[in-house]
Amino acid sequence: MFKAKIDSTMLRECIESLTAIVDEGKFRLTESGLKLRAVDPANVAMVSFELQRDAFDLFQFAAEEASSEAESDSKAELELGLDFVKFLGILGIGGRDEIELELDENVQKLYTRMGSLAYTISLLDPSSLRKEPKVPELEFPVQVILETEVFRRTIRAAEKIGDHIVLGVDGEMFYMETEGEMDKLRLGLRKDQLILLTPGTVHSLYSLDFIVAMSKGMSHVENITLNLGKDYPLRLDFEVAEGKGKVSYLLAPRIENE
Amino acid sequence: MFKAKIDSTMLRECIESLTAIVDEGKFRLTESGLKLRAVDPANVAMVSFELQRDAFDLFQFAAEEASSEAESDSKAELELGLDFVKFLGILGIGGRDEIELELDENVQKLYTRMGSLAYTISLLDPSSLRKEPKVPELEFPVQVILETEVFRRTIRAAEKIGDHIVLGVDGEMFYMETEGEMDKLRLGLRKDQLILLTPGTVHSLYSLDFIVAMSKGMSHVENITLNLGKDYPLRLDFEVAEGKGKVSYLLAPRIENE
Amino acid sequence: MFKAKIDSTMLRECIESLTAIVDEGKFRLTESGLKLRAVDPANVAMVSFELQRDAFDLFQFAAEEASSEAESDSKAELELGLDFVKFLGILGIGGRDEIELELDENVQKLYTRMGSLAYTISLLDPSSLRKEPKVPELEFPVQVILETEVFRRTIRAAEKIGDHIVLGVDGEMFYMETEGEMDKLRLGLRKDQLILLTPGTVHSLYSLDFIVAMSKGMSHVENITLNLGKDYPLRLDFEVAEGKGKVSYLLAPRIENE
Repeated sequence: MFKAKIDSTMLRECIESLTAIVDEGKFRLTESGLKLRAVDPANVAMVSFELQRDAFDLFQFAAEEASSEAESDSKAELELGLDFVKFLGILGIGGRDEIELELDENVQKLYTRMGSLAYTISLLDPSSLRKEPKVPELEFPVQVILETEVFRRTIRAAEKIGDHIVLGVDGEMFYMETEGEMDKLRLGLRKDQLILLTPGTVHSLYSLDFIVAMSKGMSHVENITLNLGKDYPLRLDFEVAEGKGKVSYLLAPRIENE
Repeated sequence: MFKAKIDSTMLRECIESLTAIVDEGKFRLTESGLKLRAVDPANVAMVSFELQRDAFDLFQFAAEEASSEAESDSKAELELGLDFVKFLGILGIGGRDEIELELDENVQKLYTRMGSLAYTISLLDPSSLRKEPKVPELEFPVQVILETEVFRRTIRAAEKIGDHIVLGVDGEMFYMETEGEMDKLRLGLRKDQLILLTPGTVHSLYSLDFIVAMSKGMSHVENITLNLGKDYPLRLDFEVAEGKGKVSYLLAPRIENE
Repeated sequence: MFKAKIDSTMLRECIESLTAIVDEGKFRLTESGLKLRAVDPANVAMVSFELQRDAFDLFQFAAEEASSEAESDSKAELELGLDFVKFLGILGIGGRDEIELELDENVQKLYTRMGSLAYTISLLDPSSLRKEPKVPELEFPVQVILETEVFRRTIRAAEKIGDHIVLGVDGEMFYMETEGEMDKLRLGLRKDQLILLTPGTVHSLYSLDFIVAMSKGMSHVENITLNLGKDYPLRLDFEVAEGKGKVSYLLAPRIENE
C-alpha cells in the first residue's frame, strides 16, 4: 500500500533530474522514502536518486510480505515502474497544486490527483525494465562546489564548439575546457570564486552530450558538487526538494588521444 | 457602402474565434452588424458568429438594392469574402491601434488603415466560398458554464493522452475524460466549482482534434458555456468584443464503440 | 600588437549590424579604431562599418612595419579576419561582462576573455576573404530620418505580402509600399511624423530579402537615416556604440517592370 501527497513543483524537479539520464525506470519504495538507480541506454551515465519520506506532505506505506522473498519487515519494499517523460508531462499540466499519489498494486496502476484533475497511469512492468546497476566504488581526490548557473552557462557555450570537455583542478583553480577545430573555450575559477575547492592536480575528459543532458536535470538547483579525479569518472551531486532529496550523476571518462 | 472603425485587439479576438474552425469565409453585413456561419472543411464543426454594430466605434452601412434579389430595405445585406488567416496576420502587425475598414464593392477590395499603415485586401469571390450551412435544430438538456482556462488546460492535457474526449454531467458533477492506451485523465468539477450547472445524466464522445482547435479560438475569453446531451452534438458558446459579439461552435459527436 | 577592452553588449550590437549582411569579413585595425567594408555573397548589399577607438575602455595598438608595403607610420594597420556569426555566439554567452581582446599576430589567434571565461578564436586568413569593395560615389537628393521600430514593423508586415518594396518620398510624405498578388500594404508618414524629411519626389524598388536582413542588424538602434533617389541605391545609416560607431548599408535598386 502506498499513498502520498507532495508539492507538485517539488516532484517535477525530482523527475526532471531523472529524465536527464533515463526515460523510464523503477522507483523502490520503502517506508523511509523513494529510491532509484539507473543507467542511460548507452551505459555511460548513471543516476542515483533518493527522496526522503519527509519531503512528502503525506506518506503512507506498507508492503505486506514484500514483493520479493521473505525479508525482514523493515526492509520491505515495493517496485514502481514509471515512464518518467510521460509523468513529467502530467505534472506540467496540474499547475502548482499539490499532487496526490495512490498505488493500486493489483492492477499495477498509479492514481494521481491534482486539484480537480485525476490521472491514472499504467505502471511499467518492473521486470521489463533494465536491472538496477551497481554503483562502482570510487574515491575522488578532489571536490569542487560551484553555482549551477556558471556551470550551465559554460556547458551551453562549450556545446557550440566541441564534442568533449575537460573538467579539472590545477592547484587552487578549477577549470572547464573545450577545444573545437579552430577555437578553444576555457572557464577558470579561482578558489575564492567557488563555494568550495579541494586543491589538487587532476583532470578528465568527458563526452559533452552527457554533460549537456545532466545540466538539463538541474535547472532549479542552486549549487552542484563535482567530484573529480585523474582520468576518472565524474560524480556530480546536488540536492532537490529543499534538501530532502539527493541526486548523483556518475559519468565515465573518455580517453584523451593526443 | 460599408465603412467602420473598431478596436483592433477586439477585432483580432473575433477573427481568432473564426480561424479556429475555418480559414476563410463570408461575412454578411447588415445595418445591425456582421454575421457569419461556416463549417470546417471536414463538415464536422460549425461556427456561428455575430458582431453587433455597437461593437464598432463607427459603423456606416448602406446596401443599394442589395446583393441578391429584391429584398425589403431593412433586410439589405452585403457579402464580404475574406481570407481570415491572412487578415489575422495583418491585424497582428498594426499593434493596438484602432483599425479603419472601408469596402469598395466595385473592385471588391477592403481598405484597412491602422495608424500610418494602409492595407488593401482583395476580397474573395463569395460564390467561390462554400455555402452557409443550416444550423440544425437542437435541444440541449444540460448546460455547464465554466472558466475557459480550466477547460483549455484540460484539453492540453488530454491531447497528450488520446484522440477522443468525453464531456458529461453526472448528477451535480461535470466531467471531461480521455483514455489513452495505458493512461486515463479525468477532470471532475462539482457544481460549486462551476459558474452554472444543470444537473442531469448525459455524456457524449467528441474528436479531440476539433475540441483542441476550438480551444484556440477562445484564448481571451473568461467563461464558456457548454450545451450537452446524450450522444449528442456539443454547442460551445462564448462572448467576444466585451459582450457585443457572440460565437457558437457546434460539434458532431463520435460514436462510442465499446 | 592589439589589445582592447570593450563593453560586450556594445560589441555585440556592432557585430550584429555586420552579420545582417555578411557571415565573415576582415576588420582593418588602425590606431584610430576599427573599420570594415564588405559586400554580401550575391553582391547586392554592402556594409560599411567604423568603430572609434574611444568606444573602447582600453585600446592599445601598434603595427610594426605594417602588414602591407612601407606606409607612413600613421597609416599602419593590421587585418583581422573573423567569423562574425561564431563571434556573435561567443559574445552571447559571456553575459553583460566587459570583454578583453588580444591579438596574437604570429599564430593568428584572437584571445578573448569575459569574466572567468577565456575564448581563443583562430582568425581567418585575410587573403582567403573577399576583397574589400569600393564604395561607389553617390548623391542622394532625399533624406529621411525615422524611428527604427516603425521601419522594422513595416518590413515585418511587408514580408508577409510580397518580395519587393518601394521606398519613396512624395512631397512632404515618406512612404513604403509592397504589393502582393492580391494585397497591398502602404505605410505613409507625414513630415511631422518623421524626425527629418527632405521634401522631393523620388522612389525606388528594392528586394525585400535584403531589407529584411538589414532590419535585423539594427535591433537596438533608435533612429535610422534613409538616403534615397529615383531608381537609385538606398543608403541606410545608423549609429551604434553610443554614437562612437557608424554603420552604412548600401543596397542596389531593382528595376520595376510594369
